[in-house]
Amino acid sequence: MLGFLFPREGNEFFDLFEQHAAKTEEAARLLKAMLDNPAGPADQARQIKAVEHEGDQITHHTIEILHQTFITPIDRGDIHRLISRLDDILDLIDSTSERLWLYEITEVQPEARDLGQVLVNAVAEVRKAMTQLRNLKDRDAIINTCKEINSYENEGDALIRRAVARLFRDKMEPITVIKWKEIYDYLEDAIDRCEDVANVLEGVALEYA
Amino acid sequence: MLGFLFPREGNEFFDLFEQHAAKTEEAARLLKAMLDNPAGPADQARQIKAVEHEGDQITHHTIEILHQTFITPIDRGDIHRLISRLDDILDLIDSTSERLWLYEITEVQPEARDLGQVLVNAVAEVRKAMTQLRNLKDRDAIINTCKEINSYENEGDALIRRAVARLFRDKMEPITVIKWKEIYDYLEDAIDRCEDVANVLEGVALEYA
Amino acid sequence: MLGFLFPREGNEFFDLFEQHAAKTEEAARLLKAMLDNPAGPADQARQIKAVEHEGDQITHHTIEILHQTFITPIDRGDIHRLISRLDDILDLIDSTSERLWLYEITEVQPEARDLGQVLVNAVAEVRKAMTQLRNLKDRDAIINTCKEINSYENEGDALIRRAVARLFRDKMEPITVIKWKEIYDYLEDAIDRCEDVANVLEGVALEYA
Repeated sequence: MLGFLFPREGNEFFDLFEQHAAKTEEAARLLKAMLDNPAGPADQARQIKAVEHEGDQITHHTIEILHQTFITPIDRGDIHRLISRLDDILDLIDSTSERLWLYEITEVQPEARDLGQVLVNAVAEVRKAMTQLRNLKDRDAIINTCKEINSYENEGDALIRRAVARLFRDKMEPITVIKWKEIYDYLEDAIDRCEDVANVLEGVALEYA
Repeated sequence: MLGFLFPREGNEFFDLFEQHAAKTEEAARLLKAMLDNPAGPADQARQIKAVEHEGDQITHHTIEILHQTFITPIDRGDIHRLISRLDDILDLIDSTSERLWLYEITEVQPEARDLGQVLVNAVAEVRKAMTQLRNLKDRDAIINTCKEINSYENEGDALIRRAVARLFRDKMEPITVIKWKEIYDYLEDAIDRCEDVANVLEGVALEYA
Repeated sequence: MLGFLFPREGNEFFDLFEQHAAKTEEAARLLKAMLDNPAGPADQARQIKAVEHEGDQITHHTIEILHQTFITPIDRGDIHRLISRLDDILDLIDSTSERLWLYEITEVQPEARDLGQVLVNAVAEVRKAMTQLRNLKDRDAIINTCKEINSYENEGDALIRRAVARLFRDKMEPITVIKWKEIYDYLEDAIDRCEDVANVLEGVALEYA
């Protein structure tokens, strides 16, 4: 009943993680550029959407292979979690850029630009961790990268706290507050998903080291 | 220590999935009627709540049986995921109708009516997929139904994007924007959970075909 | 490859659950005091944040041990789910107090105070259930505690429904509505996570009784 292929080289999963992380980093950099200068928001959002579609295909392909592979290089559930969280990050980057465009944001809050940079930094570490995953014996390297990701998450948290408090303190228009709270929510979620990836990776490193 | 019953016919799970999906479809149709004409919102919301309670009982019963069954017809985790996501859809339909009532919505946005129809269509496909699950050998049938669900999700996404952009562009009152953004969020989540069901089903189909 | 320690006494997990639940109850009580009288919100939020950090360390330690333990007293996935949901409750309590502080809330809505009490009650039951978990043979005790938690969740639901309806009915300022809707969302999520804990516990009780 259980139709399975013989284990291909499990390295295929590591290849796919790296490919996805590269797309996610590309999207994060495009979003950062959009936050710095939302000059042509429709085009900028469309470009990010295209990268998101490519990420989607990598995710779909990974899950297909996962279902057809009997023996996996790391725990099956962890593979599923890693690719799902990576895909969440990319989705949230896409949602952020879509909101910037749909809400016709022309003036970006300074904290949002800073958050865009924190997101780029966190995603770059996620990508680095994905290459380190190939060498599970070097557990310290992975765990250090995870710590970097966690510290970016803390930095993002503090930034968002400050940003949201300012929305209210500066007595902005309610409609402006609604728009920016949503954009900050997406950015916060994206950075939180980076931390989720770090948590899964730490577990993997502890288990296999 | 592990107290288990001998495997009853696993068909019981398929029966429960179908029963739950029938309730979910019933609730979706009631919500669509409410969106078309919210004439007696308190009663309409109460009626949907009653269906939601029936769904809850099916969910609870499914999980009870799952914990007492040693050998399951499909992966234990997938059974849990399927009934949980089905229950999420029904919960979100209930939350939507509750908001329509509590927020004293008398004029429904046209996009919300269209979204109600997309939700009905997606839920009808989810229900169809649940009957197809009995015949895992016909993997193509399940995968085609999942594709239908995914295309409804895309349609819903585009509708919501348009709807939310219009809330801001038409310079509606902030309070109106707050209410409708929440209602759209619930409708979007409900349709997203249909896609989650499709993702689980695709995995099951790939594994057992 | 799989580096594991021999099973320490699995009781360690029960100790950690109890320690975490004690921290969560402490934070819930601090939040309730803050809702009753937000006299020094910066200090009050900081105090809760300190408790949340202690909870974080317990969570982290639990997951570390989990990854190094080969044979666990209850299902590995359930241990992960229990500590994660406990940690979610504590995080959400922290987020609530942070919002009360950042949004410079001086007048607390009466329903929010009532919700604070419901949360304290639900968390106290969660803590009780964690001690009952040591004696899985007394399945009825655990299931009764879970029922208590569920009934607090229902009480909270009704309260929030009333609270949110009133925000709109009393024609409060949009900015006030935005702030309170967010605070109610956090309180609702915190109580919902208590119910999630109850659901996991019920499953554990059914399986091992």
